[in-house]
Amino acid sequence: MYIPTLDDMLAAHERVKPYIHRTPVLTSSFLNELTGAELFFKCENFQKAGAFKVRGACNAVFGLSDDMLEKGVATHSSGNHALSLSYAAGRRGIPCHVVMPRTAPQAKKDAVRGYGGIITECEPSTSSREEVFAKIQAETGAEFVHPYNDPRVIAGQGTCSRELMEQVNGLEAVVAPIGGGGMISGTCITLSNLAPDVKIYAAEPEMADDAARSFRAGHIIADDAPETVADGLKVPLKELTWHFVHNHVTDILTASEQEIVDAMKLIWKRMKIVMEPSSAVPLATILKNKETFAGKRVGVIITGGNVDLDHLPWMEK
Amino acid sequence: MYIPTLDDMLAAHERVKPYIHRTPVLTSSFLNELTGAELFFKCENFQKAGAFKVRGACNAVFGLSDDMLEKGVATHSSGNHALSLSYAAGRRGIPCHVVMPRTAPQAKKDAVRGYGGIITECEPSTSSREEVFAKIQAETGAEFVHPYNDPRVIAGQGTCSRELMEQVNGLEAVVAPIGGGGMISGTCITLSNLAPDVKIYAAEPEMADDAARSFRAGHIIADDAPETVADGLKVPLKELTWHFVHNHVTDILTASEQEIVDAMKLIWKRMKIVMEPSSAVPLATILKNKETFAGKRVGVIITGGNVDLDHLPWMEK
Repeated sequence: MYIPTLDDMLAAHERVKPYIHRTPVLTSSFLNELTGAELFFKCENFQKAGAFKVRGACNAVFGLSDDMLEKGVATHSSGNHALSLSYAAGRRGIPCHVVMPRTAPQAKKDAVRGYGGIITECEPSTSSREEVFAKIQAETGAEFVHPYNDPRVIAGQGTCSRELMEQVNGLEAVVAPIGGGGMISGTCITLSNLAPDVKIYAAEPEMADDAARSFRAGHIIADDAPETVADGLKVPLKELTWHFVHNHVTDILTASEQEIVDAMKLIWKRMKIVMEPSSAVPLATILKNKETFAGKRVGVIITGGNVDLDHLPWMEK
Repeated sequence: MYIPTLDDMLAAHERVKPYIHRTPVLTSSFLNELTGAELFFKCENFQKAGAFKVRGACNAVFGLSDDMLEKGVATHSSGNHALSLSYAAGRRGIPCHVVMPRTAPQAKKDAVRGYGGIITECEPSTSSREEVFAKIQAETGAEFVHPYNDPRVIAGQGTCSRELMEQVNGLEAVVAPIGGGGMISGTCITLSNLAPDVKIYAAEPEMADDAARSFRAGHIIADDAPETVADGLKVPLKELTWHFVHNHVTDILTASEQEIVDAMKLIWKRMKIVMEPSSAVPLATILKNKETFAGKRVGVIITGGNVDLDHLPWMEK
């Protein structure tokens, strides 16, 4: 198992810069008052392809050797990684095969196809996803780019918190959502090396709290098919992301479905930005744990903005 | 009738700067490809109180003489001016009386009260609004700050396009929504003086196209109670805004209800920002008049972001 390093993250940043946005950091005096903290929202919802995942995907795709270009890349993903890998492959002009759960939001499927990705559907469970994917990979010979358990991807995601550190002085904590752990692992590479005093909190839905249970148990606990409104956070930790979570994360905080939806609506209403339920989990956990963050300068990663506007979670009831 | 000047706009900018945001300008490669133009979106949806109107409101409130402070200010408004005047009055610590149509979005009423505004409701017609307002003003003696037909307000709104010019080089046209004409009039002060070659287009809903008909007829035509999804744009021109529209606007373009809603959804989906139907009218008209804007650098004013998230227009059917 190769553990990506600070040098890998720095090299990734140079490699991906031409293909990604340096996304803005927004603040909200209303949310600062409400939480008692100073919050700095790193807005990856404004990122190319609508999510931070384009960082890791571009690092993997633009690092591919020439002999792999014809066969292209392949992945399975709950959505944003699929979108991002399709975008990156399109920019390099190579094929991208994607296995997606049939239950993924229609908006995400349409967007993957819009970027030129070739979709094969599977059932909405980790086991089905991996089975269908093995078949596709065998047929195409494409290079597998795992959504998060891949050193190239993790090194790429680490570029987000590097930018955040350059944009905001004196951060004392960073809160990011955790699903498979790619963003959190990249954040760990960057902060543990460049700003080791900054505390790293992972935020997770109660309904898919396998990472929180893993963290407390001291080993990976994986659920096969959890259900949560935060559809980007259903996947389990893998050995590489577990390494970072286990060694560098301060705590994993959880929030209920209602708390996530309320936090999402609050951000839309007060900050006037469109972001996904997954991206609202950090604010939901900050609101639940005000004493942990009060008086601190806290970075909050808004991971993505690819939401189905026809099915907003506060309208589903 | 006092016609506000460039100096009034420059003085307004100094006066309001401590109380407003210098809002960002966003771009979208997707929308540039779709329209064939280079679009620069001035995002007043991120403005204090959620709309550009805080510029004019702050200019009026912070320019008030000391002897008027106790009686405060009063206005009638379809929403954002009410919000903005309440915000400005709150910052100066004076009362703010607001007459609002009972049909105004609940989110706007709640927000006005949240900023400390005192609401009296009227029927959703210009005539009822003015009648109820006269009563309130007589009772309180408050200083009337008209939502748009007021030199202080127009001078304040002109600060928006001044910032836009500082933020984007070589603009060839600016498109802004038109209701009563406050934003357009402020834009005319700024551009006709500082960049007279930049063409100024007003964008209006077909269902409330009184400004377009006035423009073609050469005199003000006012409708009493038009109905459009762009609820900020229902009010008619008045003598002061007519002066600017008549003398400095290149053309007034219109869009249908469906075109406005489609443009709004497109901006939410691709730019990941929350903005109001009124703010989508410029993009709707640009998409309808591609040949007018093709190859040009075009400023687009996103006027506000105060939308009722429980009643989005593409979900009303």
